[in-house]
This record gives sequence, C-alpha cells and structure tokens, in this order.
Amino acid sequence: MEATAREQVAGRSVEWPTRGLSFGGDYNPEQWAPEVWREDVRLMGEAGVNMVTLGVFAWGLLEPSDEEYAWGWFDEVIGLLAGAGIAIDLATPTAAPPSWLLHQHPEVLLVDEHLVRRAPGSRLGWCPSSPVFRGYALRIAAALAERYGDHPAVRLWHVSNELGGGNARCYCDVSAARFREWLADRYSDVEVVNAAWKTAFWGHRFSSLDEIQPPRGAQHAVNPGLFLDYARFSSHELLEHYLGEAEVIRARSAAPITTNFMVGSGSHVVDYSDWARHVDIVANDHYTLVDDPGRAEDLAFSADRMRGLVDRDSPWLLMEHSTGAPSWQQRNRAKDPGEIARNSLAHVARGADGALFFQWRASLGGAEQFHSAMLPHAGTETRVWQEVVALGRGLERLAVVAGSPVAPARIALLVDEESAWAFEQGLKPHRGLSYARESRVWHTAFWNRQVLVDVLPADAPLTDYSLVVVPSLFISGDARAERITRFVADGGTAVVTYLSGIVDPTNTVIPGGYPGAFRGMLGAWTEEFRPLQIDEEVRLDDDSSVRDWTEDVVLDGAEPVVSHLDGATQGRAAVTRHDYGEGGAWYVSAALASSSVQRIVDRLIAELALPREVEAPPGVEAVRRRTIDGDVLFVINHTSDDVTIATGGLDLISGETSPDATVVPAGRVVAVLEGMRP
Amino acid sequence: MEATAREQVAGRSVEWPTRGLSFGGDYNPEQWAPEVWREDVRLMGEAGVNMVTLGVFAWGLLEPSDEEYAWGWFDEVIGLLAGAGIAIDLATPTAAPPSWLLHQHPEVLLVDEHLVRRAPGSRLGWCPSSPVFRGYALRIAAALAERYGDHPAVRLWHVSNELGGGNARCYCDVSAARFREWLADRYSDVEVVNAAWKTAFWGHRFSSLDEIQPPRGAQHAVNPGLFLDYARFSSHELLEHYLGEAEVIRARSAAPITTNFMVGSGSHVVDYSDWARHVDIVANDHYTLVDDPGRAEDLAFSADRMRGLVDRDSPWLLMEHSTGAPSWQQRNRAKDPGEIARNSLAHVARGADGALFFQWRASLGGAEQFHSAMLPHAGTETRVWQEVVALGRGLERLAVVAGSPVAPARIALLVDEESAWAFEQGLKPHRGLSYARESRVWHTAFWNRQVLVDVLPADAPLTDYSLVVVPSLFISGDARAERITRFVADGGTAVVTYLSGIVDPTNTVIPGGYPGAFRGMLGAWTEEFRPLQIDEEVRLDDDSSVRDWTEDVVLDGAEPVVSHLDGATQGRAAVTRHDYGEGGAWYVSAALASSSVQRIVDRLIAELALPREVEAPPGVEAVRRRTIDGDVLFVINHTSDDVTIATGGLDLISGETSPDATVVPAGRVVAVLEGMRP
Amino acid sequence: MEATAREQVAGRSVEWPTRGLSFGGDYNPEQWAPEVWREDVRLMGEAGVNMVTLGVFAWGLLEPSDEEYAWGWFDEVIGLLAGAGIAIDLATPTAAPPSWLLHQHPEVLLVDEHLVRRAPGSRLGWCPSSPVFRGYALRIAAALAERYGDHPAVRLWHVSNELGGGNARCYCDVSAARFREWLADRYSDVEVVNAAWKTAFWGHRFSSLDEIQPPRGAQHAVNPGLFLDYARFSSHELLEHYLGEAEVIRARSAAPITTNFMVGSGSHVVDYSDWARHVDIVANDHYTLVDDPGRAEDLAFSADRMRGLVDRDSPWLLMEHSTGAPSWQQRNRAKDPGEIARNSLAHVARGADGALFFQWRASLGGAEQFHSAMLPHAGTETRVWQEVVALGRGLERLAVVAGSPVAPARIALLVDEESAWAFEQGLKPHRGLSYARESRVWHTAFWNRQVLVDVLPADAPLTDYSLVVVPSLFISGDARAERITRFVADGGTAVVTYLSGIVDPTNTVIPGGYPGAFRGMLGAWTEEFRPLQIDEEVRLDDDSSVRDWTEDVVLDGAEPVVSHLDGATQGRAAVTRHDYGEGGAWYVSAALASSSVQRIVDRLIAELALPREVEAPPGVEAVRRRTIDGDVLFVINHTSDDVTIATGGLDLISGETSPDATVVPAGRVVAVLEGMRP
Repeated sequence: MEATAREQVAGRSVEWPTRGLSFGGDYNPEQWAPEVWREDVRLMGEAGVNMVTLGVFAWGLLEPSDEEYAWGWFDEVIGLLAGAGIAIDLATPTAAPPSWLLHQHPEVLLVDEHLVRRAPGSRLGWCPSSPVFRGYALRIAAALAERYGDHPAVRLWHVSNELGGGNARCYCDVSAARFREWLADRYSDVEVVNAAWKTAFWGHRFSSLDEIQPPRGAQHAVNPGLFLDYARFSSHELLEHYLGEAEVIRARSAAPITTNFMVGSGSHVVDYSDWARHVDIVANDHYTLVDDPGRAEDLAFSADRMRGLVDRDSPWLLMEHSTGAPSWQQRNRAKDPGEIARNSLAHVARGADGALFFQWRASLGGAEQFHSAMLPHAGTETRVWQEVVALGRGLERLAVVAGSPVAPARIALLVDEESAWAFEQGLKPHRGLSYARESRVWHTAFWNRQVLVDVLPADAPLTDYSLVVVPSLFISGDARAERITRFVADGGTAVVTYLSGIVDPTNTVIPGGYPGAFRGMLGAWTEEFRPLQIDEEVRLDDDSSVRDWTEDVVLDGAEPVVSHLDGATQGRAAVTRHDYGEGGAWYVSAALASSSVQRIVDRLIAELALPREVEAPPGVEAVRRRTIDGDVLFVINHTSDDVTIATGGLDLISGETSPDATVVPAGRVVAVLEGMRP
Repeated sequence: MEATAREQVAGRSVEWPTRGLSFGGDYNPEQWAPEVWREDVRLMGEAGVNMVTLGVFAWGLLEPSDEEYAWGWFDEVIGLLAGAGIAIDLATPTAAPPSWLLHQHPEVLLVDEHLVRRAPGSRLGWCPSSPVFRGYALRIAAALAERYGDHPAVRLWHVSNELGGGNARCYCDVSAARFREWLADRYSDVEVVNAAWKTAFWGHRFSSLDEIQPPRGAQHAVNPGLFLDYARFSSHELLEHYLGEAEVIRARSAAPITTNFMVGSGSHVVDYSDWARHVDIVANDHYTLVDDPGRAEDLAFSADRMRGLVDRDSPWLLMEHSTGAPSWQQRNRAKDPGEIARNSLAHVARGADGALFFQWRASLGGAEQFHSAMLPHAGTETRVWQEVVALGRGLERLAVVAGSPVAPARIALLVDEESAWAFEQGLKPHRGLSYARESRVWHTAFWNRQVLVDVLPADAPLTDYSLVVVPSLFISGDARAERITRFVADGGTAVVTYLSGIVDPTNTVIPGGYPGAFRGMLGAWTEEFRPLQIDEEVRLDDDSSVRDWTEDVVLDGAEPVVSHLDGATQGRAAVTRHDYGEGGAWYVSAALASSSVQRIVDRLIAELALPREVEAPPGVEAVRRRTIDGDVLFVINHTSDDVTIATGGLDLISGETSPDATVVPAGRVVAVLEGMRP
Repeated sequence: MEATAREQVAGRSVEWPTRGLSFGGDYNPEQWAPEVWREDVRLMGEAGVNMVTLGVFAWGLLEPSDEEYAWGWFDEVIGLLAGAGIAIDLATPTAAPPSWLLHQHPEVLLVDEHLVRRAPGSRLGWCPSSPVFRGYALRIAAALAERYGDHPAVRLWHVSNELGGGNARCYCDVSAARFREWLADRYSDVEVVNAAWKTAFWGHRFSSLDEIQPPRGAQHAVNPGLFLDYARFSSHELLEHYLGEAEVIRARSAAPITTNFMVGSGSHVVDYSDWARHVDIVANDHYTLVDDPGRAEDLAFSADRMRGLVDRDSPWLLMEHSTGAPSWQQRNRAKDPGEIARNSLAHVARGADGALFFQWRASLGGAEQFHSAMLPHAGTETRVWQEVVALGRGLERLAVVAGSPVAPARIALLVDEESAWAFEQGLKPHRGLSYARESRVWHTAFWNRQVLVDVLPADAPLTDYSLVVVPSLFISGDARAERITRFVADGGTAVVTYLSGIVDPTNTVIPGGYPGAFRGMLGAWTEEFRPLQIDEEVRLDDDSSVRDWTEDVVLDGAEPVVSHLDGATQGRAAVTRHDYGEGGAWYVSAALASSSVQRIVDRLIAELALPREVEAPPGVEAVRRRTIDGDVLFVINHTSDDVTIATGGLDLISGETSPDATVVPAGRVVAVLEGMRP
C-alpha cells in the first residue's frame, strides 16, 4: 500500500508519514553511545517500529555553542534510521533551550503569576512572547530544515514539544506589553475594554491601556474579563510561535508539519480547537492518570475529542503515550498485563492512525530516569518488551484501517476551552466543580452502552446528529445559543446541564434567570444557585442522590423528569424536559450521580433509537472503522470476564476467524473485519 | 417619628440617619446605565428601602484622572435618591484606588509578610502608612465632603470600606520606618524594647531601634513581643487613616461619620475595642460562614459583641450582610427560605437599628459577579426579591424599637483582640486551638437556653453582672486580673477557661504555675500543659470526653467538679470551683465538649437564678428590646418545628395579636409587643 | 573515679568532661537577672547537675557591638559554675548572629531554594559559604577561646549549635560560585560533569561550569545528579565552617571540641558519617516526635545509629533532649510520668555517657517560651522537677558504666545519608515512600525481641556480624555492592529490601534488572516497579497484605518465601531467599507490613541463633553495657504491666538487689549489675 494522500489543510495535500499505521516513539540517541544506536535500530526492527520522533531535546547537542553546529552525530543517526526504513518525525528542539542560551539571555525565561522568574534546569521555561527567544528558535529550526528538509526519511516535522506544557502563560513585562498590543487589536479603544470587562466594579476603570497588567502578583480576586482575555492571548502567543517555526520549515521542506497536542478531558493550556486547522496532521500526547479508576473511559473521551478536532473523515496521530509508569505523578503505576494494547488500540479504534510512545529506550539519568519506555531498564527479557513487540505486529496486521474514517456517531457532546477556563477560575458559586467531570460523566454513560459520541468544539456544525449533549457550556453568546436552539427547533434533542449559558464571551453574566442563553428553549429557568456543602446530599425521586450542586428551578413550559425529595429544593425539579419546535430540550440542573445520568442516557438511547455498536456489558468498549474492505469492529474488553459478541469475521489482530460470534477474552482486544456491507 | 438624637460620642450629638430602622444596601450605580437608575429607585420604593450606601467603589469614576473630577453623574444619582426620600450613606471611595493612581504610584501598594508587593487589580491593596496614598485619599474625601457635605440627603458618612480587609498589615519599608517611630513613642528606648520582648533569647538583643524589622520574610519563628506589637501598630495605622479622613469630612459636614467594622467571633484585623469610640455610629458587616452548622449561633455572638462595643443603651447599625450566597467562600450557599429575615431580625433583636445588604443589584461583571444581592440576576420574580420586600415591610412595622436598648444581660463574656492575636500565633503548646471556638461554645450554651450574654472587651466594667465568663483570655496583666478577682471577691461568679492569664501585655509568660494571673482566685494551678494528639480522647467523669487540650491541675483550695477518668491526667481535676471572697471562681482546664459546657452552664443558670427570656428548645432564639411602649420580645425559630411561647401580645411583624401565648412557626420570627411593664 | 582518657580521634587523647556520667543542660543566664543565677547554681546542685552548655545564644550579649566585648557578666557566671564544681561545655555563639551584624551585613543571610533571602529575627539564618560571616564567626570564637581556653571549668567546646538546622542549603550567588569551585575540584572538567549528570537528557549539556546553577527557583524537575551533588556540597560547606571554628579554638585551648548533631531515623541535614571523625566527642540532640506512637523505638534506632558513628568501644554524649513538650511541633505533648527517665536511660543503655537537656530554666519570652525545661515555669513543686532530681541521682549511681562499651551486636543495619537524600527527591516511581520508615520497621522488629542492632554507615566493616540488613540502600556503586556480596559469600546473611542498589553514586540508574547492584547475589531481579495507589492493598500468602510498593520479581536461582495472592503480581514472589557462597541473601521486594517483617525477623533470629538480651514481651527494651565490674543490664519497661526478667543482681538505680530475677515495674527502668563473668 502506498502512503495515502489526504486533504486535511485547505489547498494542501498531506501525505501520511508511514505506510499503514505508524508505530514507534521518541528516540533520544544523544543519551547513548554510538554502539547503542546500532542495537537500537536492530531492536526497532524486531518490534516493527516504522517511525521515530528525533531530536526533541537535542538543541544543546546540535548547537553546542552560539551558532556553532554539530551535525555529524545527527547525520549518522539519521542515516542509520533511514537505512532501516524507519520514517523520521524530525523535531525542532526548541522545547529545551541549551544552557548557554539561558546563561547568555536569562531574560527569555518565563515569569510566573507570582512574578517569579523561572530558573534554568528544566524545559519549556521560556516566554512565548520573547523576541530574543523567538530569534534563536527560528534560527535552529531553519538550520535543521535547511539541512534535512529534503531528506527522504524525514516524513514529518514536529515543531517543538508540548507547547505550553511548562509555559502556558508568561507574566513578564515583555508579555504584558504584547498583551496590550493584542488588546488594542481586539478592542480598538480602552473604553471598549472597560465596557467588556465591567471595570466599573471595584472602580477599576482604566484611563489608558498602559494601566492594564496581566493577572499577576498577589491579589484578592481577578477581573473575570481580564482573566479570560489573558488566557486567550496566551494561547495566541504560543500559536504564533508554532506558526513562526512552521513558516521557516515550510520554506525549506515539503514534509507535513505538526506539533504534539495534549488533549485530555478537561481544560487545556491552549485552545486546540483554534490550533487544529494550523497543523498538517493533528497529533496528541495522552497519558492516563494513574489514580483514576475511569482511566479507560477518560482515554476514550480524549480520543473522541481528538476526532472532533479534525475533519471527521481524517485520521489523527497518537504521538506519545506510555508503556507503563509515567514519571510525574505521585505513585506512577505500571500498566497491567495487556493494558498497553488496550490503550493503544482504543486510540486506533477511535481514529488514530498510529501509536507512538515516549520514549524508545529508558533513560538512566535526568529528571525522568524512572519514566517507562518501549525498551525498559531491564531490557528485552521483560513483559513490557514482549507486549511492545506484539503490539507492533498487531498494528502491521491492522494496516487496512489506515486512512479510514470512524463509523459516524449520532451524538455530539460539546466542549469549549474558553468555557473550561472561565468555569474553573475566580470567585465562583462553587469553587470545587470540575468541568472535566461533568463532561465525562455523560460520555461514559454512552461508552458503557457501546454508543459512539463525537466530542466537538462548541461551534461545530450539528446537522449530522440526533442528540447534542451540552455539559456546563459556561460561555454561550447569542450566536452559539441560537445554533443549538435551531438544532432543537429543527427536530434535534439537546441535553443542557447546569452552568451552561451563564456568561457571554466577555465573561459577563447574562441576566434574567439562568441559564440565560437557553431559557426559552428549555422552558425552565433557575432563580438561584444552591451549591451543597461538602457533606450535604439531597435525595432525588429517581433513587439517587445529588451532591455539590442544585438549583432553584422554575418551570415555564417544561415538565419535571426528576425532582428533589428533600433539602431547600424539596419538590422542585432537578431535571426537566421541554418540547421545543420539532425537538426536545432537557435541562439537568443538578450534579447528578453517574447512576442517574445513566438512567437518562438509557432513556435517550431508547427514545431516539441510537444504535449500539455491540450489545455488551459496561467495560467492553466497541467502535467501528469504515475501511474500503468493510467495517472493522474493535472490541476492547476492560473487564475480567470473557465476553462474546454477536459479530463474526476475521480478527485482524489474532488472524483467527469466527463465523457468527467472537469471543473477546478478558483484558484483550479484537478487531473483526466484518466484510463488505451489502 | 423624628430621627432620634443620641449621645454616643462624648460631647457630640448624633442623629440617626433614617426615621425608624434603616433598610437598604450598597448601591453602585456606576455599574449601570442611567435608565437602570430610575428603575432602581422605583424598586427601592417598592421594597421600602430608606437608605443606601453610595460611592464605595466610585473613585475611578469620580476622579477619572489625577485631580480631574466627574461629578455630573453622581449629582444625578444623588438627586434621584434624594427625590425618593432615600437617605444617603456617602462613602469615601478610598478602598479602591483608581488604576491611574496605582500606575503612577506603585509604591503605595502593600507589601505582604513574604516581601511581595501586592499587584493592582483588586481592592484595599494600599499601605496604610503610605504618605503618598494618604494624600490622595484625603484629597478625594475632601472634594466629596466639600461638594456634598451639606446635602440634606447625605445623612451619614462611610469612610472607606472594611478598613484592613485586604491591608491589615503592610510590611514595606515605609511601614517599617513608621513602626520604629511607633516603638520610640511607646518604649522611649531600645533597652526597654529589649526587656519587653526578652530579646536575650536567641541573642536577638538590639543595639538600636534601626535594627528592628517587621516580622516579615522567611523565618523559623518570630519573637512573640515583636509579633504582638506589630499587630498593635498595624491597627493603629489603619485607625490613623480613618481619623485622617474623618477630620477632613468633619470640617465640611455635620453628618455623623462611620466606617464598617467586620466583627465576628474570632480575631479581627484591627482592635475594634479601640476603634469604637472614634466613630459616630458603630456599624458592622456580617457574613455567615456557609459551612458552619452553628452560623445562627455565630451571628448571635457577633451581634452581642457589637453591643459590647457601644454604650449599651445605644443602637448600632448592620451595614452589610447578604441575601444569599457570598462570593468568596468555597461553596457559596444560598440562604434557606426565611433565613434572610431570621438573620436580619436577629441583628435587630440584639441592638441593630437597621439591616443593610451588600448590594442592591447583582453585578454582571467584576470579581464578585456571583455575589447575591437584594435584586438578583433573575430579577423580581424570585423568592429572594419577595423576601427582601417582606423584610422591608416588617422593618417598617418595627419602627418602635428604633433607639431602644436591649433588655440588660446578667452575664458578661470577655473577649480581647490582643489575646486572640497572641493566642493563635507562633510556637504554641497546641498550634491548632481556636480562640473563636472556645469563646463561642460558652455563648452558645446560653443561647440554647434563651439567656442573653453581653460579649465585652476584656477591660469593660463588670458591676452590672452576676457572672463573667473568661474564655482563654491569654493576656492578663495585673490590672486586668485584679479587676476580675475583685468582681469575684465582691460576690460575682467567674468561669475562667484554659490558657487564660498566661502572658502579660508584652506577651511574656507569667511564671509560677498557670494561669499565673488568676491562680489565687481559682485556688488551683497547672504544673504542665498536656495537649492531646489528633486522635487522642480522654474520658471525663461527667459522661463526656475531651479532645485537644488537658492540663495537670493541682488543687490549692478549690474542689474538683469534673475529673479525668484516664490518660496521663487520670484522677486529676478537669474543672474546679473555688469559694473566693463573697463569690465563686471556676477553672475549666480542658477543651470541654459542648455537652459538658452545657451542663456547667445549666448549673450556673440554676445556681445564680439567671432568667431565660422564654422557655423554649435549643434553636429558638429570644431577646427583648426595651422600648418606650414596652418590651418587644423577638423570638426567632431556627428549628423545623413550630414552637409556642408563653407570651402574648401584638406581633409587630405579622400584625396579629395573641392573648396568652404565641405560636412561632418553624423558620419564622415574631416580635411581640408585651405592653408596658406594670 | 578520674575522668577517663580515651583514644577517639587518631593521635589525640580526649578526656571526658565530667567524672562519671554527664548530667545537665543548656544554660542561658543572659535571659535572667544575676540574683537568679545564684538560685540556678543552688538548684543545679540539688539536681546533681555536673555540666552545662553555656553561651549558645549569647553572641549579642558578649559582643554587643562590632568588636566591643562585654565579658564581665560571663566571667561572673563562669565563676559561679566553676565554684560549684560544674563543668562547662562552652559554646561558640555563632548559631545566632547579633542583630547589629545582620543589620550591617544583610548579605550574609541565607537565600532559600525559592530565591528568597532569609529575614533576620530567627537563628541559623546565615549562608555557610559566606566569607563575611565566617570572618565574624571565627573572630568571636577566637576571642572566647583566648579568654576561656585555659579555664579549668571549661571541659568541652561546643561549636555553634545544630549546624545546618536552619541553614542546611543556601542558594545565594556566593554559594553558587563556591559550588562551581567544588565541582571543579571533584570533576576537573565540565564534560565530566555532563557525563556524570547525564545532561544530554532535556538537552541540558553545559558548555562551561559557569552555566551551572544550584537547584533553585521555579522548575519542573531537577537533574538527579545536580541535586545529589548540591546536597554533598552543602554538607561539605557546613563541615568547613565547623573545622574553621575548631581550628581557632584548638590553637587556644586543650579541651575537646564537639558540635551537636541531630541524628534521628531518617535523612539528615548533613552527612554525619563524614563529620563524625572530625569531632572529639560525638554528641547528639534528640527530640521524640510527639505524634509518633513508636517514639521509643525511634529513640532506640537513633541511639544505635549514634553508636555507629563512633568507634564502637567509645561512648557518645546526648547533648540535648527534653523533659517534656518541645516547642516546634503541632501539638507539643508533655511526657508521661516516668518517660523522662525512660528516654534518658535508653540513650545511656545504648552508649551515651551523659544525658543533657535543652534547657535548664524555662524561658519566659522569645520564640520558644513554651519549650519545656529542667526547671519549669511552675517551679520546683512539680512532677517534672522531681523526675529531673531523681534522674540526676540515678545517673550518679550509674557512674560505673561511664566509659564502658555496649555489649556487641551481631546484626548490622546499614544506613546511608546520600541514599536517603536521593531516595526522597525528584520524580520517583512513588514519591511518598519514607526512607526512615523502611529502615525503622526492621530495627523495631529486633527491638521487640530485645536483640541489639548496630545501625552503621553503609561502608562500615561487616566482619563482626552474622546478619546485615540493607533497607532501601538506593545508592550502591560497585565497591559497596561487592563488600556486601563478599560478606554473604563468606557465610553471612543479608536482607536487602526494595529500592536498594538502584543507582550508582552519580544518581544514575544501574540497568539490567533491579536491584542492579545486587542481582547476582540475590538470585532474583525485578523487571518493573509496581507502586500501589493510595487505597490499593495486595494480599500475601503469609496472612499479611502489602500497601504502597510491589515489584514484578523474576526468580533466577532464589526460592520464593512469601508470594502475592492477588493484584497484577499474583503468584509472583514478594520475598525471596538465595543460597550464595557460604551464606544466604534475602530480597524483600515489597513494603511489607510490620507483622510480616516480624515474622521474617523471628525466623532469622531462630535460624542464625541470634541471642536476645532477655526474654520479654515487645515494649520491654533491654541492652547491656560491659563495664570493668561486669555487665550492666538495662531493662526499660515501656508497657503498662510489670515484667519479671530472669536476671538477678544489684539494680544500680534503686540500690536494691534481687537474687535470681528482677521485677521491672510498668514504666520503670532497672540497671542490674550482673557481676563479673566467670
């Protein structure tokens, strides 16, 4: 099979860097002696690695002093990889500036919100707005692209690394000055800023943009408009950095360009829904949180959210995940037997055309010396190595899914970076609410039923869907609310949950009863929020009880679905439903328990006849990819019992064929090629 | 009824700003368009608002740039309010300096104890000792007073806002220099400081006052004398600021002057017992703590403490409280139905001649955009608005209580700001003890029995009382101890609890057995403190058990009342009683459980024949105000059951009359006019 | 008896400062009026005090301004003490620089890791590398030694106080520059540093030593090699300070010189195993942790560790402990009745030739005004005073043990400061593991059986032992591993626990299966760490369960002793045993519960026939000192029941003789002179 060309960026043909699915990881040869390089390439072959990310942390080795380059060792490594047919995802090394640069230019180091300048000795500690740093970064990017831009093994460019991971928001004076320019662009005049931010409160009115500072330093509370705009500005500055590097590469190389996002279930360091259209291949780093019992569900959410960032017929790339323990968590758990494959293939099932790891060979020194790798400290006589090799083989056999879309979903769940930022900041009615939790509980209820959900940016088109779930969409200006309202009026069903539609895009409350933006569609409104104290619990009439959040809901056309049995809201509705136009609108005013959410989701599945991929117990995950040879049904069994699914066919992973039904052993994954649809 | 003139400040006749009780809130018209102002005034009329606090955060709008004033909009608002007969409590806007001032003079910003200068963008972030800030503040105060000092609607001046709320202690070099001057005044010579602070410890002896620094920066532990004097100094500096503003206003206006205190149950940012004599009307801001199950009890404590700050025949003013959720707590609970009235009327019952709220109309933007208000985001179709209107009507019908004293108490409970500061600072035997908890547990035991307690500054006269409760009065020099001892010798009863009388006013231990200052009177002393570990509990012989704190008590004339059943103190007394002179002195050496405190309080009520206002279950609060038309008995039913009290008469709130007994429905308040005493 | 001369420092004869055992405490007369000094000396006599530490915090009083000295009061105090026959341990007062010095030279104040300069007003806040501070410190030390070096009452010098207690690591620019010099000495060249620290990771390669900074400021994660070397450097700098002071004293006085260590069960501020050979008498400060239920066990561990720092035939000195509450803990518990003697005599039993306290008389002011003392605030009518007097008498009667060695142990438990530092720093597989916990649980299991353990620096000779316990010896280079391996090959038994032998002395992982350094000897290795989450528990087949830590162990010659019953490690070994050479090697791969450790220890006691000092229940502590008159058996009964031990003889403490058996009452201590061995 030839590498597939795909139209991903308007007017630009992108060629996928590998044939079939991509498999490999970050490769940091600078940590090892040249004799190890040869062993590495041999073992990569053994494992079926077809792509590595090279050079992420190599700046200090490639440019050992100011404008003096040391290409020799890198040429040799690239030659070894190319000779073995391994595609190179070549990274610009700008995540980790060399020590000499930080020594010469300490002013490029980030200043945090407490006005403390970051010390050298870590990574990503630079100010995204620093023209000095930008100059050095673009120079090394250009030098790399100049030298390797036409190298046939260089199939992808990897700009910097996890941009914003350690420098999401800089508060230095250079950033402050840039922020004022950004404000001048956005608002034209200081009085427009005053109006947008409601600076009359606490008498903060600005006479001039010069008086505006980032939300930094010791303060009682920050203006919500300022906070939100600084978050937007910071995302913009990092994107500008990306675009700057991309531009110098594009001038010197025809290979596609990407950077590794860090898409999870909650709020992110930047607004990836804005970034996605600027990268040639959308790529993600995903690490499960070791203490999260729902980490498989979380992974599925994240992968479905990745799909929402691309044209839904296009694949994306899992750029980093781990074979075992990460390094930066409290108790860095190893993966259970089989978990590597379950994690990797769950991403593939949900649209990833590759599964790469950080990193190839476990480091002996440095801050992440205990981070897991494809090749562990203990070498090849290990379960981890065996599972890596088996995964590589499995991915080879799954080549048919490369380039194929995921079978379409009928449910959209809307997420919004800016809403997440605003939701979790400042003096809120309840400061402990989690945007991620509220989104995920709905997604998981569908996951439990093997029903696919597209997790979409809040302003994505909804025409293909039957149901839209709107969890805590805090910011909803008129346009956004109107689109959702029109979707319902036209026959769709919407589930809107608490703290949606509370503020407009300036982070200003929409008055007149919450959720202001959706009040008409919902036929219900809230007169007062009623957050619960930490030990408070209110019973509902669906046999569940609610913690954390309730509201004083007033019915205005809607019917109650679930009501409160006690507390100050006794007798009031917790969940309502309203016929609106041709469709229906639900309002969920309380932080429902997952059992309660499941009950609503089951009712929606039945009423809207939403198809399940398979019928299986919760913990069995199922998704189809639609290939030219027919659908491939991925079934991932996270439970400790074997399950049988009513679909037969060739399991591409094991190579076995079952006529009518397929047994999926506990902890294992199958990928059944169902044959052509009639 | 005419506004009553009262002698509150020696030689100065103060006229109460409204007829009858005051009702209203903070009004911030600068946040709204002029058309909203007209609706506001109309709705204020509907609610019975007769006073608003104006201009608290308006500096940046009144003086939009240095020494240029914009009076027009303010003239218009004042005209609208005056036209509607609404009294104006005119605030100097100095709590929130304008952005241009902080931009021009960043040196006026406070420096915190970690030596970090506060950033602009919040409020009250200025150094109380800054001559630069003082100059600007007095200039705007003078300009305001010049323009509106004679306006007939301006009935009260409100200096700044919650002074010390965000700037209780500044540690900048300007403050440090002022502190040295203050020390020179207080101690005359550095050797007197050395002696007072016992600087020989750790060899800290100062050769010169110039070597003395505020207790700032990274330190192992702070000298207790230095700590306490810096707290005194800081209170003094803020009072100087108040006096400075008051002076420029007094020169231009005959209206009374106040500032809003923040009196609660624990330690405060300044020493209000020192401040109270400097304000014309003593005013308080009180917000319940949402996670405190005893918040009604706490409110009663706070109100009784307010009464202790004024001449007890004089009313005080509740300047701020809330109709619902505050903004600055973790889970900002709404109030339960009826709670607004219960809270407001509990303050009135205990001596407040008015109940005002922060704020009139809920803000849409700014840091406190989710703070509740009299007029919520959801408008007038809400329970909150209805309760506000009903409260306004109720307060009108209670006009007869205006100016009347609360019927006298026979119990004094002593509190002391300096003791609270010293008690909770530094390397203490048990760092987790709460001064507020120990005071409140005794107050609540009387509250449960409808027995009124005056909460008094520790040096207040005791002649009118039968019983004095002395909870953890950490600082007791000779004079203070002698007054309490004389009270007992003359026939009074005193209950002294642990960690009273431990240090003198320099924060130096009084040696010779604790509590040194009270040892003779108590007939008992402690050889060693015996704090308990977090999971330790010691049983007492009164069926209770004690946590946190016990002592090795030695009897020296006293009899044991309660003793320890186990632990290292087994067999030793926990509570003792001693006949002393004509009276009796109790020592409570342990952090008793509330049930144990209740048992002692019940015995004291019986033995001393302390009258209950009514006989009712705990949770029913009862207080009398003594009007010229007879006593008005306020009964506030915090329970979920109706209660009947054996008092008949006209309920001023409902307008209904009951001949012999009155039913107080669950959650409701009555105010029964009992008629003239025979 | 004459004071004993002992060979402790090569080529230097050290005379013990007192006859018999030393008893007394810190004496700070500068805090008291001269009339109190006379009472102090009288009461010291009453208590049997024969030594005090003088002048620890007296700098500001001895040198009240720059180079002006006030000796008069000190002469008088020294005269009083000398007149009463009390030996003086004369301290250089450099722990607490005078206020005038810090005022003139703020640059000598320490800068913490967050780059915040310490404020004056505490103690030990100076930079150990500051040449300015060093100059002042050596000058006052020289002046003191000049004046009192020949005074017959000055029997010991006490350099500074708890060096490193408040200034273990300074991060100022002076320290940074010194660190670079230290690196140049250690590594010769920057490329050697790059190799040792594996700076290729994250591209941190240094072009020059000038680019290296201390691990200070805001960072994501610190290079492990840098961290460890900075800890080594910091210990070195403080030792240099000690040596500097010692040199100027040595030039002026023949008395021995010491400084008070702070040896406990965990990691220390400096590497005392390096320091011990530089002091004439090894002295320790030991405070129990009030919330530690195993504080008696911890004390025993600490005392056994002290013995490991000296030539094992030499005594050491307990320089500070407390009679009751410390000041710096959260809930500073008093000691239980009898606990003072149990604590003091446990130290003596384990080799201390004296028991001193901080401090003589309780301070009334200063940061530690509530720290307990020999003479409490409440005076001499107290239990504490009575117990102090009784202890003094008891120590006099124990004079025979002075200078005698502790009867030899057959078990060595290895500890290592550098391993502890490395173990608890940085991005570890499990960041919550405690090095101290893992060491102590093994020591306690022997303590429970009255079996003595020597706690030794990891590189101490092992030839005298049958068993060596190696808990989490994180750093094990080749030499260290080889010595332990040879010990086993030659017939010894070793118990190696998890996370031993993981890195080499540069903090670089030893690859090839953990624990790399010991893999061959153990006949077992680990392919992957498997830390458990906070609520996870895995059952073992010895009826216990394990939390926190498990591993995927592979057997390679060893036999399983204990195995996992569930979890991802089900069926795998948790504990293994391997015949190696003439001996046996155990591997404990899991964080065993104490019951499980006890079971292994009991098996080892039985198999290796390790003798118990007495047979008694857990909680009864027993150790022998081997005097010229015969063994003295100390038995300390920490339980609440009397116990009878099968040893008769004269109890030196009570003066009573029992023929065959001795009753040790609950909470009491006996010291039975067993008579000469036949």
